[in-house]
Amino acid sequence: MPKRFFATPPLSPLIISDTTLRDGAQMPGVRFSVADKVAIAKALAAAGVDVIEAGFPAGSDHEIEAVRRIAAETSGPLIMALCRAVTADIDAAWTALADAPPTRRGVGIFLGTSPLHRRHKLAKTKAQCLEMIAGAVAYARERFDRVTFGCEDGSRTEPAFLRQAYTTAMDAGATGIGFPDTVGVLTPEVVRRRVAMLTRLAHPRGVKVRVHFHNDLGLATANTLAAVAAGADIVHLTVCGIGERAGNAALEETVMALTLNQQQYCRSINIDTRQLTALCRLVAERAGIALPANKAVTGANIFATSAGVHQDGLLKHPDTYLPFRPELVGADGIRLPLSPLSGKAALALRLAELGIALSPEGLARASRFVKNADKAAWDDEDALLRRAVAAAGEDQTP
Amino acid sequence: MPKRFFATPPLSPLIISDTTLRDGAQMPGVRFSVADKVAIAKALAAAGVDVIEAGFPAGSDHEIEAVRRIAAETSGPLIMALCRAVTADIDAAWTALADAPPTRRGVGIFLGTSPLHRRHKLAKTKAQCLEMIAGAVAYARERFDRVTFGCEDGSRTEPAFLRQAYTTAMDAGATGIGFPDTVGVLTPEVVRRRVAMLTRLAHPRGVKVRVHFHNDLGLATANTLAAVAAGADIVHLTVCGIGERAGNAALEETVMALTLNQQQYCRSINIDTRQLTALCRLVAERAGIALPANKAVTGANIFATSAGVHQDGLLKHPDTYLPFRPELVGADGIRLPLSPLSGKAALALRLAELGIALSPEGLARASRFVKNADKAAWDDEDALLRRAVAAAGEDQTP
Repeated sequence: MPKRFFATPPLSPLIISDTTLRDGAQMPGVRFSVADKVAIAKALAAAGVDVIEAGFPAGSDHEIEAVRRIAAETSGPLIMALCRAVTADIDAAWTALADAPPTRRGVGIFLGTSPLHRRHKLAKTKAQCLEMIAGAVAYARERFDRVTFGCEDGSRTEPAFLRQAYTTAMDAGATGIGFPDTVGVLTPEVVRRRVAMLTRLAHPRGVKVRVHFHNDLGLATANTLAAVAAGADIVHLTVCGIGERAGNAALEETVMALTLNQQQYCRSINIDTRQLTALCRLVAERAGIALPANKAVTGANIFATSAGVHQDGLLKHPDTYLPFRPELVGADGIRLPLSPLSGKAALALRLAELGIALSPEGLARASRFVKNADKAAWDDEDALLRRAVAAAGEDQTP
Repeated sequence: MPKRFFATPPLSPLIISDTTLRDGAQMPGVRFSVADKVAIAKALAAAGVDVIEAGFPAGSDHEIEAVRRIAAETSGPLIMALCRAVTADIDAAWTALADAPPTRRGVGIFLGTSPLHRRHKLAKTKAQCLEMIAGAVAYARERFDRVTFGCEDGSRTEPAFLRQAYTTAMDAGATGIGFPDTVGVLTPEVVRRRVAMLTRLAHPRGVKVRVHFHNDLGLATANTLAAVAAGADIVHLTVCGIGERAGNAALEETVMALTLNQQQYCRSINIDTRQLTALCRLVAERAGIALPANKAVTGANIFATSAGVHQDGLLKHPDTYLPFRPELVGADGIRLPLSPLSGKAALALRLAELGIALSPEGLARASRFVKNADKAAWDDEDALLRRAVAAAGEDQTP
């Protein structure tokens, strides 16, 4: 008789492909030097990213150099280079990656397939597009073991032509197919249906499905999760969500959503979440952008609260008003900054730091003073606190 | 015989409730003056917001004054005030709203219902919580026609107790029930199930369901859309997504997602999308925060692209790389800033603005110079362009 014991099968692994150095680098105002790119790539590798899309070698000698150095100076992640569906771009990728171990290099080839791209950007017929796809993928497979083909503007491409384009790419030897929502217009419900269609097309042939979502409607992370739920194998993400326009699905958000909802998504990931804060800070610094205080997962406000009800709750138990603890993402800790909405609990704590203890009545008077102070008074918070303590009338000096 | 013609029924209206002035105001670092709040409320009313959650009157005299003035100086939106489930808070709300027309005022009452909040913040049993809910709602209904009760930390409250709490509130006269994901941990799939449960509970009694999502995992907008799909009547949003920690579902994102996907969600909204950019700029300015360049819908990068492939596409047809046109959200227009990733098309355009026309070969040389310039060279873009033109060797001076 069989044993009536069923072991839990391992979770199916999700491949995290970071494109901070390619799509992220396209954020207007961002200009990564080769040294910046190498430093970020090393941090990505240390955090456990599976794939790094390192650049667009056909773009410039600087891009070739960056991709070459990233492949040489990291170990672990697969290094991908982006190419248009033309041999010159694939040659440039080869120049950048020829010295990398065959198992650690690959190319992503793209061609605009939507009616808008075919007509206005490429001036090509569907048949001409298919020919370009077949030719470029076959040419790339002569040199690279990993070749992903993506339909640029896939979200606005006719489903029937999407299937034709991907089938053509797979017939030519593509090992992965990429589905980008280039202009960020999809909703999670639609993503599920499209990705399910692609997995049905690709998985029987052993081909992986990669997704790439833009955040134009604030839905990039949710769309990525919907794709994961529908069976996508590889997700394109960027640190801090930087990228074209509103950026891409943020690595730190997607990773935390999957980490906190592993039962729902049933996928394992390799990322060390404790490195997320440092990773975001590094990318923001090298990109020359300020990480918004309210940036999900890694912004300065994530473990800070300045309103009385929340401050009171956090002082009683940190989990009351936090989705997760700071240490899980390597953040500094909880902060309770004062504001006009702060209550007596946080004010008493702040005054205690200054060696001041007021009576309950005095604290109430000081709190009222702080709450009703002019906006301008907050420009000098120390002076405001001195005046609040004076208003308490208990002969204490901060 | 009946006519075989079926008129399209009108879309069911979705109520947009803005909480920029309450939850948004709780963003650490934000300190709205009464004048700031009134200015923002007027802009919200002008944009077509249905409800304004104007503040927390029990917090301070300043909050009472702000709520009173907003009710007096706007016309149109319903003005809501937030209260804990205690009579003192409802009295403070009455002080603020007594002079407002009965049809234009209401209160939202909240009580922490999750095990964490009951045990650690309130130190109350379930029965005590239900008593507080019944008492506060009934007390509020003596003065206000619109009373919404929300289970704070509803997303981490046991479903059975959620139903008990909401049923108690409705029995006491609540006209709406609010479901907040206070710490931002829900995913869209879970939201659909929870909200469907709440609509089944509330709609047969003519009670409206309001949802409130935080962005801790980057999912607030998607969760709002999932709730709308599941039948929610009222959505809590903030301009620029400001609010506690990672903030709230952003009004501009939710509005654009619903506008671009009306067929999918089958809901109508009253917002004039052309006012979104000005509204976000006003809130960012009054809040003293920088609107991130990649902020979805209204950031400076939304209609800008600096990478060659995208610049070339936009020059051929603006829709190739845009989800919608700038005029739809009242933005300034398309920009093609130069970067190391820019191609010849955008460089030629920029040089033409300076009165310089290079031969194809000269342009290629200038473009190569720009692409391979040091990161530091970009600090003085004019000087970089002068050197690029010199490198073209065609005797032109910018």
